[in-house]
Amino acid sequence: MLVSGRRRLLTALLQAQKWPIQPSRDMRLVQFQAPHLVGPHLGLETGNGGGVINLNAFDPTLPKTMIQFLEQGEVTLSVARRALAAQLPVLPRSEVTFLAPVTRPDKVVCVGMNYVDHCKEQNVPVPKEPIIFSKFASSIVGPYDEVVLPPESQEVDWEVELAVVIGKKGKHIKATDAMAHVAGFTVAHDVSARDWQMRRNGKQWLLGKTFDTFCPLGPALVTKDSVADPHNLKICCRVNGEVVQSSNTKQMVFKTEELIAWVSQFVTFYPGDVILTGTPPGVGVFRKPPVFLKVG
Amino acid sequence: MLVSGRRRLLTALLQAQKWPIQPSRDMRLVQFQAPHLVGPHLGLETGNGGGVINLNAFDPTLPKTMIQFLEQGEVTLSVARRALAAQLPVLPRSEVTFLAPVTRPDKVVCVGMNYVDHCKEQNVPVPKEPIIFSKFASSIVGPYDEVVLPPESQEVDWEVELAVVIGKKGKHIKATDAMAHVAGFTVAHDVSARDWQMRRNGKQWLLGKTFDTFCPLGPALVTKDSVADPHNLKICCRVNGEVVQSSNTKQMVFKTEELIAWVSQFVTFYPGDVILTGTPPGVGVFRKPPVFLKVG
Repeated sequence: MLVSGRRRLLTALLQAQKWPIQPSRDMRLVQFQAPHLVGPHLGLETGNGGGVINLNAFDPTLPKTMIQFLEQGEVTLSVARRALAAQLPVLPRSEVTFLAPVTRPDKVVCVGMNYVDHCKEQNVPVPKEPIIFSKFASSIVGPYDEVVLPPESQEVDWEVELAVVIGKKGKHIKATDAMAHVAGFTVAHDVSARDWQMRRNGKQWLLGKTFDTFCPLGPALVTKDSVADPHNLKICCRVNGEVVQSSNTKQMVFKTEELIAWVSQFVTFYPGDVILTGTPPGVGVFRKPPVFLKVG
Repeated sequence: MLVSGRRRLLTALLQAQKWPIQPSRDMRLVQFQAPHLVGPHLGLETGNGGGVINLNAFDPTLPKTMIQFLEQGEVTLSVARRALAAQLPVLPRSEVTFLAPVTRPDKVVCVGMNYVDHCKEQNVPVPKEPIIFSKFASSIVGPYDEVVLPPESQEVDWEVELAVVIGKKGKHIKATDAMAHVAGFTVAHDVSARDWQMRRNGKQWLLGKTFDTFCPLGPALVTKDSVADPHNLKICCRVNGEVVQSSNTKQMVFKTEELIAWVSQFVTFYPGDVILTGTPPGVGVFRKPPVFLKVG
């Protein structure tokens, strides 16, 4: 009853287009496990697809979870910068398991219909205000974990998204101050059970969005100073190797700063809170005929 | 800009009707602060309206947060039972500040239209399936904290609710096993900004439900063995002393066991997760004319 099947389904990519990032200079924070280590650790991914530097080995006083790391702000970030500058041993990628870069945050805030081209695909007007919904933190899994297709849904769909990770507590944050509250960016999938989202549960989207494993994140939290322009990134999703979504974050209707200002009217943001900023076109449900994920 | 006004507005009551509870025998777990103590502590409220026994003074190895206490299950509960049986010093109620009995849970699950008499009040059919939405944990405040009326809403309404607190992790929990996953019960308010819930945000209820301070909880988590029948409790809400909601939890459409079974199809429950089980009739928005909370 528990599981009808599993599928390692999605490859997600966010790529700077104009300013090629130099792998050695980026700060790419990760949470990882390795056979010789007890429990989750904090690390630095040495470039996209590279091995991992164990930050807790470099400085044993550092916390082992990303949220605690972010809560200490500049103190811990400066340690990570020193680690990045030093010549440290690198664990080969084959020896580590990447966890989500943030686990058990207070909030996973999601934004609906936030790409101009995704609105066109649905034939709906571009929203005048952000449309905000949520997932429970329990839906978060690592970037290479399997997404479990629940037997309760026949219409599980993909949605690649740029995710913002909050670094500093705040309420009623002005758009002009918003980037000071951002720790960095990562990649997310807003996996969605369309039957539950669109036709069940009194049309409240929550249940269709929050099945366990429906929020793959990571691998790396790329700090904001490593991203020249978060609103000019190529964003791409592949299913079984085939590109199904391909757009650019410049298509976002409400950018990072506006989203933080909007949502912080309602709630206090805490370090580690995640904002999934919406998906570009190419999702399965608006294909003709619709296409959904299958087992295997 | 931050606060237009505050109002200590709501008195909430849950009372067993048939089996009068003997105050000295109930286990009423609380999180509290006191001037002579550093940070939040765990305690036992000595009956409804009574003083507080400091559990961390009784056993310094006990954790200081409710979630960590619940995670240890029977081990920590048996310590609390020994404290309840012993003759221990009681801090007068005037010397303690009650916090919410659970803070920063993974999930605050809410249920819509779950009282038969509340459905009648709205002239809507009784739902065939639970309607599930959520609040962010950041909306939780203590039972005697002020609810901040946000300048962003003109239609803030009250909703008293029976809240279930999860004690044991689980997924796909059967209704017949559900009570084994319950730690106990507390009182909640599902404070709601009707304008945002019903007319804004693409009709997704989240924002109207999740303003900071919109989830007063407590004071006590009454353990399940202290509650003879959670589905035969008088439930009552007063505004400025006037009774505005008065019903009985036997009016609930989906009872605790069914709600846990339903929601655990979608998500894994963790110790400390809170389920707000829906509100009885008498809310302001369905009065003629509608009545909302005001400053002062």
